Amino acid sequence: MKAIAIVSGGMDSVTLAHVLKAEGYDLHLLSFDYGQRHSKELEYAKRCADSLGAQWSLVDLSSVTPLLAGSALTDSTPVPDGHYAAENMRVTVVPNRNAIMLAIAYAAAVSEQADVVAVGVHSGDHFIYPDCRPEFVQAFDTMEQLATRGHAVPGLRLYAPFVARTKADIVRWGADLGVNYADTWSCYKGGALHCGTCGTCVERKEAFELAGIVDPTIYQETK
Amino acid sequence: MKAIAIVSGGMDSVTLAHVLKAEGYDLHLLSFDYGQRHSKELEYAKRCADSLGAQWSLVDLSSVTPLLAGSALTDSTPVPDGHYAAENMRVTVVPNRNAIMLAIAYAAAVSEQADVVAVGVHSGDHFIYPDCRPEFVQAFDTMEQLATRGHAVPGLRLYAPFVARTKADIVRWGADLGVNYADTWSCYKGGALHCGTCGTCVERKEAFELAGIVDPTIYQETK
Repeated sequence: MKAIAIVSGGMDSVTLAHVLKAEGYDLHLLSFDYGQRHSKELEYAKRCADSLGAQWSLVDLSSVTPLLAGSALTDSTPVPDGHYAAENMRVTVVPNRNAIMLAIAYAAAVSEQADVVAVGVHSGDHFIYPDCRPEFVQAFDTMEQLATRGHAVPGLRLYAPFVARTKADIVRWGADLGVNYADTWSCYKGGALHCGTCGTCVERKEAFELAGIVDPTIYQETK
Repeated sequence: MKAIAIVSGGMDSVTLAHVLKAEGYDLHLLSFDYGQRHSKELEYAKRCADSLGAQWSLVDLSSVTPLLAGSALTDSTPVPDGHYAAENMRVTVVPNRNAIMLAIAYAAAVSEQADVVAVGVHSGDHFIYPDCRPEFVQAFDTMEQLATRGHAVPGLRLYAPFVARTKADIVRWGADLGVNYADTWSCYKGGALHCGTCGTCVERKEAFELAGIVDPTIYQETK
């Protein structure tokens, strides 16, 4: 069994890779450089692949970046502080990012005759990011069944094991599997340390607290 | 009204751009370098944009090419001769190509608040290429409505005006609009002249014959 998994280097996708490994999949991890200011996360994706003995490919989408104007993750718009699920986080939306990454992952899945394409979207993403919701996952799977018919492995499917779970659930699952969360990167600002105040840092802290797991992260600003 | 259109530089997509122009859209044409051996087509896409006064972006997907193993368009597999709709043309399938290009086009459509994303798939593509069929177009549109909800222009849609038409229909439509087909490129082999024998050259000749339009193409080998 083979899986193509989208791994950014964050907590969710690194946990996803460990879940797939535990489920017995051969792994090919794909990471994407789309001009995100926190491209530092990609080092952590590579580290994840190395630790799991997985194939890793970095896809350079920098020529797509000029088409993504208006996202705080890829241009000079400031990254907002505050809670991840708040309205001011809208500027962190990178338009259609998941569809782009998943479409490329499906191309690899056809070429390599993989059985699943896996993505780490979770229920905490749903409020702000429309391309993380269960109905998107279902519609994408349906679309790809049509797009790859006769070329992919019969039964190739989109696997999103966290789509109905919270980030705290993910941390608990990952801790059970022995994931070292010090080897993951969340902060959208991409500095030397996690800032501790941007939406994804706030969400990261909260997930450890709710899960009752010790947070190994060193934050620049603790509150 | 604004349209983001995928334009390869071939007959179908160049005609598409002219159709959109005639319908009053402001145009942003996107072309893709995915390592195709006939990357020569991209010059013709640029020429089309210039002639229509359209914005043009070339998206470099060369880092995706290694993931597309097994296609005669991107690796050392020979390009087959014969009829486009024959079983031996399977090797010219680039896995999931349309989903990848369309997903990137939708990102641009969200950023630029465009009204349509347009693609030139036609009924002659259906036999070999699953990602050119009406059910794929419908499923992709549905998926993107979910992926871009709350961020795109309400009513953003995937426009595929040729999906139920033949290539001969396209040539007739384009001739009415004054398209200069000498300024389009089809041949998969990407040589100095159109080869005249590969699937897409055979299809090109046939379209002009069926449409009753003079074919301005100079073929290396005429049969």
